[in-house]
Amino acid sequence: MLPSKVFSQIKYCANGLNYRKNSVIASVLEKANVGDSTEVKGWVKNLRVQKEFIFADVSDGSCAQRLQILIPKSLKTDSLSFGSSVHITGKLSKSPRGQVELVAENVKVLGDCVVSDGYPFNPRTSHPPEYIRQFIHLRSRTNYISSILRVRNSVSKYIHDFYSSQKYLNIHTPILTSNDCEGAGEVFKIQPDSEETVKAMMQEGRDKDTVYFGSKTYLTVSGQLHLEAICRGMGNVYTLGPTFRAENNRSRLHLSEFYMLEAELAFCDNLELLQDHIEDLLKYVYRETRNTNEADLCLIDKENSNTPDWLNKSFITLSYDEAKIILEKKKIASTEEGLNKEQELALVEYCGGVPVFVVKWPKDLKSFYMKECPEDSSKVDALDLLAPITGEIVGGSLREDNYDKLKSKLPSDKLHWYLELRKFGNIPTGGYGLGLERLLQTMCRVTNIKDTLPFPRWPHNCSM
Amino acid sequence: MLPSKVFSQIKYCANGLNYRKNSVIASVLEKANVGDSTEVKGWVKNLRVQKEFIFADVSDGSCAQRLQILIPKSLKTDSLSFGSSVHITGKLSKSPRGQVELVAENVKVLGDCVVSDGYPFNPRTSHPPEYIRQFIHLRSRTNYISSILRVRNSVSKYIHDFYSSQKYLNIHTPILTSNDCEGAGEVFKIQPDSEETVKAMMQEGRDKDTVYFGSKTYLTVSGQLHLEAICRGMGNVYTLGPTFRAENNRSRLHLSEFYMLEAELAFCDNLELLQDHIEDLLKYVYRETRNTNEADLCLIDKENSNTPDWLNKSFITLSYDEAKIILEKKKIASTEEGLNKEQELALVEYCGGVPVFVVKWPKDLKSFYMKECPEDSSKVDALDLLAPITGEIVGGSLREDNYDKLKSKLPSDKLHWYLELRKFGNIPTGGYGLGLERLLQTMCRVTNIKDTLPFPRWPHNCSM
Repeated sequence: MLPSKVFSQIKYCANGLNYRKNSVIASVLEKANVGDSTEVKGWVKNLRVQKEFIFADVSDGSCAQRLQILIPKSLKTDSLSFGSSVHITGKLSKSPRGQVELVAENVKVLGDCVVSDGYPFNPRTSHPPEYIRQFIHLRSRTNYISSILRVRNSVSKYIHDFYSSQKYLNIHTPILTSNDCEGAGEVFKIQPDSEETVKAMMQEGRDKDTVYFGSKTYLTVSGQLHLEAICRGMGNVYTLGPTFRAENNRSRLHLSEFYMLEAELAFCDNLELLQDHIEDLLKYVYRETRNTNEADLCLIDKENSNTPDWLNKSFITLSYDEAKIILEKKKIASTEEGLNKEQELALVEYCGGVPVFVVKWPKDLKSFYMKECPEDSSKVDALDLLAPITGEIVGGSLREDNYDKLKSKLPSDKLHWYLELRKFGNIPTGGYGLGLERLLQTMCRVTNIKDTLPFPRWPHNCSM
Repeated sequence: MLPSKVFSQIKYCANGLNYRKNSVIASVLEKANVGDSTEVKGWVKNLRVQKEFIFADVSDGSCAQRLQILIPKSLKTDSLSFGSSVHITGKLSKSPRGQVELVAENVKVLGDCVVSDGYPFNPRTSHPPEYIRQFIHLRSRTNYISSILRVRNSVSKYIHDFYSSQKYLNIHTPILTSNDCEGAGEVFKIQPDSEETVKAMMQEGRDKDTVYFGSKTYLTVSGQLHLEAICRGMGNVYTLGPTFRAENNRSRLHLSEFYMLEAELAFCDNLELLQDHIEDLLKYVYRETRNTNEADLCLIDKENSNTPDWLNKSFITLSYDEAKIILEKKKIASTEEGLNKEQELALVEYCGGVPVFVVKWPKDLKSFYMKECPEDSSKVDALDLLAPITGEIVGGSLREDNYDKLKSKLPSDKLHWYLELRKFGNIPTGGYGLGLERLLQTMCRVTNIKDTLPFPRWPHNCSM
């Protein structure tokens, strides 16, 4: 007879999982019944000692809201302090103001927090983001960062929901690639770290850069070309994952590792289809996030309590040439081609803070795979979407679907596979890439991109 | 006055997005009304010419099912062939057998497919996976790979749904890390590819390996330590993303880049809690996937039409010592410590094909961060979950939460941050890592792991 552990079988109900009793604070607040016996575990964010009770605000990270705990002074709570972790049992009640609170019957301190022993955060203090950023491993304990990470969690979820509802397939495009993505920015290359592995795998004609995979291998700067391969076999697809740039840029808008959302629309032969799709995506994600994370958004920046105008307006469309005329009138034109950050933000301002698509770009400014405008062969059917706070957050285009035209523009023989996608059962496609961190900056009013993700990497900074 | 494009505002309805008319085949089949005018775009998977009609099976990748198209011979369809892409308008009808079909009124061939021009796949042929694998860029056009990728899409979705329903936060742990993860396997290191960047960033005392980030930087082998940092600020967390191994291993179970699901449970002080959680996760994901992707599973392997026994049984638990006794009885014990692949699979077979947790491992075989068993200090509270086809698919443990014990075991000063997580408001936690590709192998009966993801990377293979 085998030793065996009796597990409870999984339980279903119509509205999702009826998993074992979940006592995170978000759930307690959702279904709070006065008088219910409840237990919560979390961290003390604030303490106020009054006549008969100690008032402790406890958070467990599951939501922006804290649960107020009333602790009768008769209970032993010696080491209870700001930052300590606690396990509290008691009964739910309502405060005179109607807020749910927990009257403690038992308080157990699980872990002390002695601020004077080197804890970098203080009670009732709003530390500036630059200060918090010095303590990457501890900073999710602050309101500012924990709220941003909850919003990031929600935005990721609603992105997946949006595509899933439209039957787009989530495709995990690779991080490692032999494609050096000419023109798309500077890249990182990889090697095995172990000298033994390098020695064991070495063959004639190889060097350390090629010994492992047989060709030089890089970290991806975009999953687009890979998505296009799957799109031509399986239709509408998207990917959400990390991409990399080896640039020496420490601006408030740049990271060495960041998340990109990319989608490829099968049978898409019209830039307006792509624009509609992007606008719908952004409005859906933003609306849903405001519904579930309003308290987080307001903790990040009080101005987030106002719904931004653009959510209820149509996005604007300008051609590249029109945009240039506007910039001349505003006297911030430049002799350089393209748009710099100042110009991007000026265009958004000119459009009343509403996101603006700039379309029909000069061919020379854009990538080889973009499709010529049928009415003007000096232009390509490309778009940039400019948004408040960050400027460009989306770039996209129709893809060149003519085999011979693409062949004449192909920058490398290594991309023969990409050309061959057009050879058998070819279809028109279009797609785009959206920087997740820049979207979060725009949605949350976060000035520095390094605060929009849990572990930012930028030049000279890869701690942990 | 600005040029502006009038966009339709996003439309909501109670059951999700009421987005613009979606005519992918999955949607057409869901709400098929005989007599409806419909258009579909996709690829011809099969053609049969009969007396009055040409019968074409068309797939667009949105589901395993193909839509049968009846094309009256009066329509011009010269270049219609296996593999060509088509745009068909017509009216929905029902076949004598009750299947939904589309009677074509117009057929447009968008892209030819001339098999004799180098297309590697043939109609009515089931190519072996080893053959298909030679054409990575085209292989999503085969039934085998497209079905696996649809299952992968669903499994990813249900994983997110499972955690979301329990209010776990999705945390994007970093790919780049200065932690070389001692003991967890061989790692890749990264450098900027551009010599100019290296030159511009070079400082005294630096070499190419450290010039960009200021410290040697690797591709992650696990997000666990990072998850633990967030878990101690925000509670229950998980991550699903790529991880890397620079091993020279080309087995049917190994990849250089693969997806790992990792979760960290806040306030978890008991291995059985972790086991329950893993068992619930796997059963939930598998059941939901069987519901939505049954046709895909059967296309991948006919044996998948049978529900596996283990789905309705409790998982088994064995201690490491018990497992060793069983292996001795079965005469496949070895003098080596730990379990090899043959032994793992023998244990699963011994347990009747039901997944089996092996718990309470000798301390020396496991990582420094695992918690000692209270009743036996030579053992740690760790688990491996062994499953049919692949053997180990999950590894997990309670984490050492005692500051002083962890300090004495810390393998590197670089992990001081990890130790410091225990210093302020510490909590007990436990967690695990699950290999997504191995789960897919077990769920789908896929022998070779290289077929479970769109772009496999293994030694000497990183094409595209």
